[in-house]
Amino acid sequence: MTEPPVRPEPRIIGILGGTGAQGRGLARRLAAAGYEVVLGSRDAARAQAVAVELGVAGVRGAGNADAADEADLVIAAVPYQGHGDLLASLRGQLAGKIVVDCVNPIGFDSRGPYPVKVDAGSAAEEAQQILPDATVVAAFHHVSAVVLDDASLPDIDCDVAVLGEDRAAVEVVRRLADAIPGARGVYAGRLRNAGQVEALTANLIAVNRRYKTHAGVRFTGLPTAAAVSTALDAVAS
Amino acid sequence: MTEPPVRPEPRIIGILGGTGAQGRGLARRLAAAGYEVVLGSRDAARAQAVAVELGVAGVRGAGNADAADEADLVIAAVPYQGHGDLLASLRGQLAGKIVVDCVNPIGFDSRGPYPVKVDAGSAAEEAQQILPDATVVAAFHHVSAVVLDDASLPDIDCDVAVLGEDRAAVEVVRRLADAIPGARGVYAGRLRNAGQVEALTANLIAVNRRYKTHAGVRFTGLPTAAAVSTALDAVAS
Repeated sequence: MTEPPVRPEPRIIGILGGTGAQGRGLARRLAAAGYEVVLGSRDAARAQAVAVELGVAGVRGAGNADAADEADLVIAAVPYQGHGDLLASLRGQLAGKIVVDCVNPIGFDSRGPYPVKVDAGSAAEEAQQILPDATVVAAFHHVSAVVLDDASLPDIDCDVAVLGEDRAAVEVVRRLADAIPGARGVYAGRLRNAGQVEALTANLIAVNRRYKTHAGVRFTGLPTAAAVSTALDAVAS
Repeated sequence: MTEPPVRPEPRIIGILGGTGAQGRGLARRLAAAGYEVVLGSRDAARAQAVAVELGVAGVRGAGNADAADEADLVIAAVPYQGHGDLLASLRGQLAGKIVVDCVNPIGFDSRGPYPVKVDAGSAAEEAQQILPDATVVAAFHHVSAVVLDDASLPDIDCDVAVLGEDRAAVEVVRRLADAIPGARGVYAGRLRNAGQVEALTANLIAVNRRYKTHAGVRFTGLPTAAAVSTALDAVAS
């Protein structure tokens, strides 16, 4: 049995579209977990203002390009519209890095939410096609932005499905999820299985509307977080 | 606010493809919950033999057509291949009934499981197109067949996502899920959001392989089962 390859733990996390609800929430939680966070936005001044507004140590704002450049690992937390163009414009800054795609291509009409068809199969696979020199990992689709950004809630009651082709990169992102109190990173398949994970957000929105909540997802039948981590290390792909 | 329409509770449940792992497991649990179950199979003698083998009171075997005919509610627990043809052959027997589709269109290759593309969007939507006179509800995709059929496990640690267009039919199926100890039926959207729920089974298979388990899914942030039921009754669609 071969040892899984190891990648260094990231220290600085860049969040593209970091001034949106999901980006703010992730920034809050990751900074609290001890990471240095650079909120990226098209408008650097706005990112800086949001960083101040968040009132959490270790978060600063910048333009998207600077956020991507300064970070060891970059999270794309932008709307699906514009996602491809933004990533294409940052190819140089993202080369060699792990890019965590948490984009949910969801549409709404009078009958509610529905998944938007993506030619590449998923936003994450599209991102990987656009960024051949980066390592794309899909994660953080189902954690409620509202819950993430609510400082009064200490724990996030949600698993983070982590999908990717690169075992070491998947493990880095899994540990990132584990660093958020209450959350648990769970390997949930290859990138070609990201489409339904992204689309499941439409179901969570339907659940939220019906039951007036901010639902998340847990996998049952798994061992504890620590054992999940060990299993990941021990089992060959 | 209008009262949701009510459908009578089913007494006899037919399970098409009832001799397969998922069908057997559902038969075991639903019979234990007090329903009369007719296992259907292409081969009536085989269905009768499996019913005896199960050793649970209230389960009998029959051909698929008789199972569909005798039942108040019919569960389609067949492989995706042949699913459409079977349903088309039973249009008459299924007319006017609730048909619960728990089919997962999943393929396998050397890289593992992946979702099979379905032109209609999902097996459930395909079923509804084939059966315009029945009411199709999608459910029971994620409960492990192994766990369902293991008589030594009293509880199923899994939510059952229930999807459909007909509010009363959804509620009947939700209560059916609630009747299995440990399971909980949760409304999770319209039928057009069934595709990703079916496809998520590929992720569960990936989870099972990585962590050597039989994983299920729970929604977090929801009230207790009883409150879920009340919320369903109280909230307009």
